[in-house]
Amino acid sequence: MAGDQSLLKRINRMAIVRSVKLRPGTFRAHLAAATGLADSTVSVLVNELIEEGWLRADASPGRRRAAGRRPSGLTLDGTRLALLGAELGVDYLAVAACDLQGHPLLSRLVDYQHRDAPRSLGDLMALVAEAHHRLARDGRRPLGAGVGLPGMVSSDGVLRIAPRIGWRDLAVRPLLAEALRRAGCGDLQVSVLNDANAGALSEYVFGDAPAVDSLVFVSLGHGVGAGIVLDDRLQLGHAGLSGEVGHSILRPGGDPCPCGRRGCAETLLSQEVVSREVTGPGHPVLHLDELLRRLEAGDPAVRLAAAAAGEHLGLLLHNLVVTIDPAVVVVGGPLSRLGDLVEAARASLVRLSGASTSHRPEVRVSRFGSSAGAIGAAGHVLQQLLNPLDRRPRASQGH
Amino acid sequence: MAGDQSLLKRINRMAIVRSVKLRPGTFRAHLAAATGLADSTVSVLVNELIEEGWLRADASPGRRRAAGRRPSGLTLDGTRLALLGAELGVDYLAVAACDLQGHPLLSRLVDYQHRDAPRSLGDLMALVAEAHHRLARDGRRPLGAGVGLPGMVSSDGVLRIAPRIGWRDLAVRPLLAEALRRAGCGDLQVSVLNDANAGALSEYVFGDAPAVDSLVFVSLGHGVGAGIVLDDRLQLGHAGLSGEVGHSILRPGGDPCPCGRRGCAETLLSQEVVSREVTGPGHPVLHLDELLRRLEAGDPAVRLAAAAAGEHLGLLLHNLVVTIDPAVVVVGGPLSRLGDLVEAARASLVRLSGASTSHRPEVRVSRFGSSAGAIGAAGHVLQQLLNPLDRRPRASQGH
Repeated sequence: MAGDQSLLKRINRMAIVRSVKLRPGTFRAHLAAATGLADSTVSVLVNELIEEGWLRADASPGRRRAAGRRPSGLTLDGTRLALLGAELGVDYLAVAACDLQGHPLLSRLVDYQHRDAPRSLGDLMALVAEAHHRLARDGRRPLGAGVGLPGMVSSDGVLRIAPRIGWRDLAVRPLLAEALRRAGCGDLQVSVLNDANAGALSEYVFGDAPAVDSLVFVSLGHGVGAGIVLDDRLQLGHAGLSGEVGHSILRPGGDPCPCGRRGCAETLLSQEVVSREVTGPGHPVLHLDELLRRLEAGDPAVRLAAAAAGEHLGLLLHNLVVTIDPAVVVVGGPLSRLGDLVEAARASLVRLSGASTSHRPEVRVSRFGSSAGAIGAAGHVLQQLLNPLDRRPRASQGH
Repeated sequence: MAGDQSLLKRINRMAIVRSVKLRPGTFRAHLAAATGLADSTVSVLVNELIEEGWLRADASPGRRRAAGRRPSGLTLDGTRLALLGAELGVDYLAVAACDLQGHPLLSRLVDYQHRDAPRSLGDLMALVAEAHHRLARDGRRPLGAGVGLPGMVSSDGVLRIAPRIGWRDLAVRPLLAEALRRAGCGDLQVSVLNDANAGALSEYVFGDAPAVDSLVFVSLGHGVGAGIVLDDRLQLGHAGLSGEVGHSILRPGGDPCPCGRRGCAETLLSQEVVSREVTGPGHPVLHLDELLRRLEAGDPAVRLAAAAAGEHLGLLLHNLVVTIDPAVVVVGGPLSRLGDLVEAARASLVRLSGASTSHRPEVRVSRFGSSAGAIGAAGHVLQQLLNPLDRRPRASQGH
């Protein structure tokens, strides 16, 4: 249906949806001013959007309490459309769905060992298809599916390298489309992005209103990556490869990193590093649940390892903060569940901020926990729909 | 004059100027499609812009060679308007003017010792007024003046801290306006920005067409700072304080920095550091000209010091590149004149890029040399005029 619409109409429709998203309870009369559209155009498009399940017109709970009849305010309709998201983790598959406001509708997380790419992507899409069918049974129409991947996704949608699972230069989208077709969901639009970028969108697209103008999401697990939102956009960089902060060098001449450098952030604060600090070298990497269990039992080795990693995270965050000056820093990914690690990072960042007059951003833990990647990938679907003009490279089109 | 125009008219006028800037030689007939304006509107606005000195209609040199008569293409008029820029350096004052395409019209650089802020700003504005008068004698109308400052300029235009000259929490704009009024240029609009941000704009606003979509400008002098352009905008961060990369920590536990931290980039690669490596501690900082003279004479101590600083710069650039993924890195500021330093930085960055599949950006030296801050401040004037809707914080207005 969206494909039939002229670009201008899509732009106008989405301008209305963005306005309502930003100011739930907006009245039709205000939308003309907010969007610059004629009243009659607003009226036609709002009716369409209500019919299709984007908006609904009713008094908000706050207004319901007020006496008397009022014109009904518009809010996003949370009941008829859905956004699907999936994350291919290093050792798990995650699928989630949410409504237009990011309220979770379902989520699944399963441990997973990768063998080859078609099989892993097929298994992930089978979970997506299952979620799709559940949503359809509940009368919801999915608007698309986003997929977060644990590696560098270039702006042409190719997974350039995912070192922890050994994939390289893989055109992922055709494989996903084919897997969806086989699973009976061939009409589902699919988009791909890096997992940390997905995390950033989980916080940005579904964040509190008024939205923060900038944030950095740091994803901590087997690898370390960041998603950067500045100026109302996920900033992907020239080739789509921004946020590879796991390979920023925090300790020159330090331990060798599998990437060939020394002293990368990933040599100081990944799940492997914390696990090795606990078990000594030569043991398999501890599952995050096991690390959590030991931490809760007060195991001093885990506490020490988490605090040491957190100290390094504080340094990484400091360098990001002075460079980017975000309003908010969000820490996500499996390791963010280790409270001692996050606390040590906060303390380290505060110490490094010191007497500085720099703005010191809020540091908080991802609100979506282990679903952040999948929910953020779902947010990517909404973000792309809401911004029909966003086509990279936009920047090179003008000064 | 611009103040009388409705916002919509300014937007439309500047959309035309941006189109012509991006594609010199554009024909009127193409502008309607490029801007979405009606032919008749384009016609009226183009005539106005020609009359006011923004555009001119004539065959481009390339077209002149073609035989026969053709409709005349539009280019930016380089003859009647001017942009003024100034930089308050740690030990110099710089003033420059350029036309709409960034071609320098005049530039002055004078050594300077700061005493108090009103006096320094007054002296800088006296130079600006002098330049203004020279431009006026040549029949050029200045569109405004930008001023680059060696410190953190928050988004409300306050100089939060300029540690190298000891200024703090200074509302600079009123002082500049007053100084301009006293110098007989009270009608000149003035804007302020950080010096590294000005450097970034010098490259971005006046760069080659097609414009790069992203760049990082690293300014090296008494301090170290960066200006970041992403997604067609100077990215100032939440409080306007991005790019403080001189206080990113490159060597944890390293030498103390005046900021209170240890191992900041500025403890490894500032003009003070290079000078101290050459003279030993306790001597006055060598003037850049003196360092250059010794380098050209083959002084091994200067070569070694420059190479060591360049090695650290390579590390700083690596961390910026993996984080931001810019198309281009530009090195500017006084120290960028030390060829050995830049060469060592390039080599260090290449070594650190190693087998990485990351995009490896071009690293080049500022094309405007010691005028980069002043020319970039002039570019800020143009950038603000070209984007009448740019008002921070734009991002918080919508998703």
